[in-house]
Amino acid sequence: MSYPKTINNLIDCYKKLPGIGEKTAERLALASLDMEDHLIDIFSKSLKDIKEKIKRCDKCNNLSETDFCQICSDTNRETKTLCVVESVKNVILFEKMGTYNGLYHVLDGLISPLDGKGPEDIKIDALIERIKKEKIEEVIIAVKPSIEGETTALYILKLLAKTKVTVSKIAHGVPIGADMDYVDTLTLEMAMEDRKKISTE
Amino acid sequence: MSYPKTINNLIDCYKKLPGIGEKTAERLALASLDMEDHLIDIFSKSLKDIKEKIKRCDKCNNLSETDFCQICSDTNRETKTLCVVESVKNVILFEKMGTYNGLYHVLDGLISPLDGKGPEDIKIDALIERIKKEKIEEVIIAVKPSIEGETTALYILKLLAKTKVTVSKIAHGVPIGADMDYVDTLTLEMAMEDRKKISTE
Repeated sequence: MSYPKTINNLIDCYKKLPGIGEKTAERLALASLDMEDHLIDIFSKSLKDIKEKIKRCDKCNNLSETDFCQICSDTNRETKTLCVVESVKNVILFEKMGTYNGLYHVLDGLISPLDGKGPEDIKIDALIERIKKEKIEEVIIAVKPSIEGETTALYILKLLAKTKVTVSKIAHGVPIGADMDYVDTLTLEMAMEDRKKISTE
Repeated sequence: MSYPKTINNLIDCYKKLPGIGEKTAERLALASLDMEDHLIDIFSKSLKDIKEKIKRCDKCNNLSETDFCQICSDTNRETKTLCVVESVKNVILFEKMGTYNGLYHVLDGLISPLDGKGPEDIKIDALIERIKKEKIEEVIIAVKPSIEGETTALYILKLLAKTKVTVSKIAHGVPIGADMDYVDTLTLEMAMEDRKKISTE
């Protein structure tokens, strides 16, 4: 004998989430039983909605409910600067900082030869195309300071070497090996201010 | 700027679950985005279903999709012994042990005067009524060894003092202060074997 089928289904679903094991999934499923009806309705609906409503921004690849995301649609943003980030989570992180007013480009990963991930697996082509089309003047590479991050930065720099685009990289304060998700906004602000122009020479 | 509304809704829902904070909720919501479509459908449906389909067994108060739970409906179970547990989770725990063949009674809590929780707040009346009606011969109290557990056991014992019902308590091996959820099945098996008859004398 185990839980009724519906509860087992729910436990299985929770278990599919990262970092959720058997015990936690069981705990969450039982806790869901105690949730208020209207909350469960919103929960259930949101799960369906994210699949139906959420897509990627046609310009920057950020999460969006419309063709263009909130940032790309915002006419008050400075459109000549592009901040290149690894994931959509990092966009939110930079936005929380509140001082950056340019646009973003979400790569959806980094070049990682060891994992068999090449430039064609992330949104680099779209980035280069966009830089040319939108006449971007500065590209700030804001990826984590790891081998993968450095490789990706260097690759982008090489592709832009013959253009007039300034390529810079956030610096200062972001400790090597750190996860971008856990960097505090002050460190991030310093890193933005101290960005350095990089070149292949 | 933050996440699109649908994602924020989902983050808020995850945050309502016990032990899930802001960062984890964000991580789970983004991971849900990457879940396969059919999984999200099951997830969303299960959440709705548990509210609609899951009720309590009319006899033992265990979770069930029908009037009587799987255990109470099972004609192979020995119907003269009742194992009294604190929560539905504990029923699953005892069932995993695999050696107990009697019935259960889920109290849904313990008597806890400090938290203002009296006998009327848990399913003790239903338990006593059931013991008489179903001619139960032995009641095994399998609640955690804490002040609340002892109080609850003593209360049940007093109510049954004038009857011929044998009241026993699981013993041995379940360490004082431990959470029933984390007791291993071997310890539990020993505790079941070594149960002792208790009395008020």
